[in-house]
Amino acid sequence: MFHLLDIIGTIAFAMSGALTAMSKKMDAFGVFIIAFVTAVGGGTLRDVMIGRTPVGWMLDLEYVYVICIACVFAVLFRKKFDRLRTSLFLFDTIGLGVFTLIGLEKGINIGLHPIVCIALGTMTACFGGVIRDILCAEIPVIFRKEIYATICILGGVVFFILKSFDFDDDLLYLTTSLVIISVRLMAVKFKWYLPTFENK
Amino acid sequence: MFHLLDIIGTIAFAMSGALTAMSKKMDAFGVFIIAFVTAVGGGTLRDVMIGRTPVGWMLDLEYVYVICIACVFAVLFRKKFDRLRTSLFLFDTIGLGVFTLIGLEKGINIGLHPIVCIALGTMTACFGGVIRDILCAEIPVIFRKEIYATICILGGVVFFILKSFDFDDDLLYLTTSLVIISVRLMAVKFKWYLPTFENK
Amino acid sequence: MFHLLDIIGTIAFAMSGALTAMSKKMDAFGVFIIAFVTAVGGGTLRDVMIGRTPVGWMLDLEYVYVICIACVFAVLFRKKFDRLRTSLFLFDTIGLGVFTLIGLEKGINIGLHPIVCIALGTMTACFGGVIRDILCAEIPVIFRKEIYATICILGGVVFFILKSFDFDDDLLYLTTSLVIISVRLMAVKFKWYLPTFENK
Repeated sequence: MFHLLDIIGTIAFAMSGALTAMSKKMDAFGVFIIAFVTAVGGGTLRDVMIGRTPVGWMLDLEYVYVICIACVFAVLFRKKFDRLRTSLFLFDTIGLGVFTLIGLEKGINIGLHPIVCIALGTMTACFGGVIRDILCAEIPVIFRKEIYATICILGGVVFFILKSFDFDDDLLYLTTSLVIISVRLMAVKFKWYLPTFENK
Repeated sequence: MFHLLDIIGTIAFAMSGALTAMSKKMDAFGVFIIAFVTAVGGGTLRDVMIGRTPVGWMLDLEYVYVICIACVFAVLFRKKFDRLRTSLFLFDTIGLGVFTLIGLEKGINIGLHPIVCIALGTMTACFGGVIRDILCAEIPVIFRKEIYATICILGGVVFFILKSFDFDDDLLYLTTSLVIISVRLMAVKFKWYLPTFENK
Repeated sequence: MFHLLDIIGTIAFAMSGALTAMSKKMDAFGVFIIAFVTAVGGGTLRDVMIGRTPVGWMLDLEYVYVICIACVFAVLFRKKFDRLRTSLFLFDTIGLGVFTLIGLEKGINIGLHPIVCIALGTMTACFGGVIRDILCAEIPVIFRKEIYATICILGGVVFFILKSFDFDDDLLYLTTSLVIISVRLMAVKFKWYLPTFENK
């Protein structure tokens, strides 16, 4: 079940990458690479920083195949995505929850401090998008507009609070994902933003 | 022989980096760094992702010396490069072939799947240029225009097909390089491009 | 004492990151991340490239706390920084010296060649700023204008020359920092620049 959600998240992230790349008029290779780094870039960065090498996608080709299919799909239906926007947004939100949990878990497995685990969860979920934006020569969107990473941090905090109450693992994962997903839906619906600061 | 070609490729990549940096009006340090990352950035990224650390150039200073010399040469003859364009293009194409093979080999050495090895070959040959473009705040040229990475992928596929027929190692390397080099020459001569996709 | 200077450098780097992020109109998360990568990005890159993982800040949370405090301070006093400019510049210069020494040391510890150690020192001191500029979609300032990295390289050369004369460790560290700090002060006062090269 969890694995299925991971795949759904990967598809959503890859598609968002492919759509961004097409809007930048990249060629087929560019579209694939941007889709790829959007989907696995966060996890790759995490693996490199904690020394878990070769990085994840090199040992489990399923991600590579899924991203290829997502790319083909994104290219074929590129003019229909306005209608698919809601589904894509939902998938992306599932990805946000699942990827955060995967990142948290990797940190816990090697005994890192909760604060570092939360950073790893946020990195896994959000930094694929950061690398995508850098490769498109843009200031990363999560630094400017959307409240996105903050939700992962919040999810991580909830995770460790529940864990300290000895929650059962399944329940722990379920609750954390639901918190992330529902806060994200609310953030978009009610247009929540983080403050910015004028310094001039 | 192979080592000599590796050095020729390194020189070509370093010079292309130095020329790009000068056209961006960078200072001497910037020129050196851009030359350096263009030449060894792809291999460094590969080494970091497969956990081969300290990364290659830290253990074999020859690359550092060669890049320094290439930089000095590029600065001194910077106004003459229009005339050297054909040589530089040929050197760059040799680099493309050799670097792809080196990347493939590193992946095979640690037992990774052929698809991942092809990714590592492409990364070694092409991602120095990607890092160069990011440091110059540009969308990487290989995502937009030139058919370049695709040739490395093609070379990798040819490599594994031949390997499955139990080709002798020397012949395997030679054939793969020749495929990469000749397809690249044809791609430029006949102006082959990958498709792009309008999504607006 | 050395540790205190390390903290002062971290604060200065984090603040310079936070101020840059605010001037780019980033939100609170963006300000924190840019402050964070400016302060620890160089060391993280170094650790990843030499295989010292999990990277430094994951094992010593002190940096995380110090950067958080520096961020809050930078946000609260963001309109007063014109007056604090001189102090910030001094702190930043201390950071330059200390971070170079830390990088040199990590390289020596694992037996790398002096040239590579100098590269690691320069990376530790300067590449946080490079990552900051990339995340702000700018060509890194140290490639274009300020004589900054060159001072770290010079410091590294002085370090190894003195070391070859069997200087006592404390004296070695002190002299190297003083060289870096005083050359930096002079470079800014007398407006020293590296040459750039017209190639058009």
